[in-house]
Amino acid sequence: MSIHPALTRPGGRSSRVLNAIYASVGELVGEGADKITFPVIAERAGINPTTLYRRWGDVAELLEEVAVAALTREGESAPDTGSLASDLGEWATIIVRDITRPERTRYLRAMVATRSGILTHCAVTDARREQASEMVRRAADRGETTPTVQQILDHIIAPLYYHVVFALQVDEDHARRLVDDVLTMAR
Amino acid sequence: MSIHPALTRPGGRSSRVLNAIYASVGELVGEGADKITFPVIAERAGINPTTLYRRWGDVAELLEEVAVAALTREGESAPDTGSLASDLGEWATIIVRDITRPERTRYLRAMVATRSGILTHCAVTDARREQASEMVRRAADRGETTPTVQQILDHIIAPLYYHVVFALQVDEDHARRLVDDVLTMAR
Repeated sequence: MSIHPALTRPGGRSSRVLNAIYASVGELVGEGADKITFPVIAERAGINPTTLYRRWGDVAELLEEVAVAALTREGESAPDTGSLASDLGEWATIIVRDITRPERTRYLRAMVATRSGILTHCAVTDARREQASEMVRRAADRGETTPTVQQILDHIIAPLYYHVVFALQVDEDHARRLVDDVLTMAR
Repeated sequence: MSIHPALTRPGGRSSRVLNAIYASVGELVGEGADKITFPVIAERAGINPTTLYRRWGDVAELLEEVAVAALTREGESAPDTGSLASDLGEWATIIVRDITRPERTRYLRAMVATRSGILTHCAVTDARREQASEMVRRAADRGETTPTVQQILDHIIAPLYYHVVFALQVDEDHARRLVDDVLTMAR
């Protein structure tokens, strides 16, 4: 997970500019804007578009950074309940609640719509991979048999996000069934 | 899977109109058009927009119908190789080849971008569900232990489409690992 270095600076001009950029992206996504481009974001944030071109390779990168920062602000971290089964159950429940919120769903769709080619880093997936690795590591330390991190991403994260971006019904029961399925693979 | 009734009529005016609509949608998606609306499609197809409003509830519905029709034209049906393991392996391979083609990926992203609310029917998922049901039914008839159709959708279809729409690397080896994972659930 790579957060732009400027994010870590407390206060100051660059932090104010960054907040304006993030807020503008959030507003545009929230309004369901059809075309979120650097000039459109710059206009909303009251800054020069070159500031954006200089800092981010493309809009997709900025959108993701904002989405990940929003996640982080919500203080989401991997649950630590004492067993992988209940960690994954809690985690999947938190995720399904999060990504089915209309604003979050719009973020995800806006992100997908701006993608092209193959990304080497997807901030959303990277963040989920890190959380999954942490839970698997702790479970292995306790001597539990675990699925692989990739299996957790493929069989819990992917179906949840798939349902949300494709506008298919998904709920906490479904999330728990996915967790049960993945745990079966570890046995 | 619901194909518009007009699709089944051979020749005639309505068939020509429908072909023009489909071709226009295909072109617009292929060009990576930012905003695919009924008026934009109608202009390209040289028809009155009311024709579109009358036949389809919204653009998402039309886009899906076109995508499903394109699938059907390619003559894709569920493999029948004599065992569920090899049926699923072949199926997953065909799907990964299909959805990683740039035109198909663009279709899927365009579809996602136009979604809102919760769909009761997603033509893409419905088509995959039908194929999965067919393979599971045949396997059950042969006395094989099978995963459920929902497990096949959640653990093979969802991760493949997730990777493609989110622009993450996916290939035939990955598809085969997903099949192995699902088969583990059935044991």
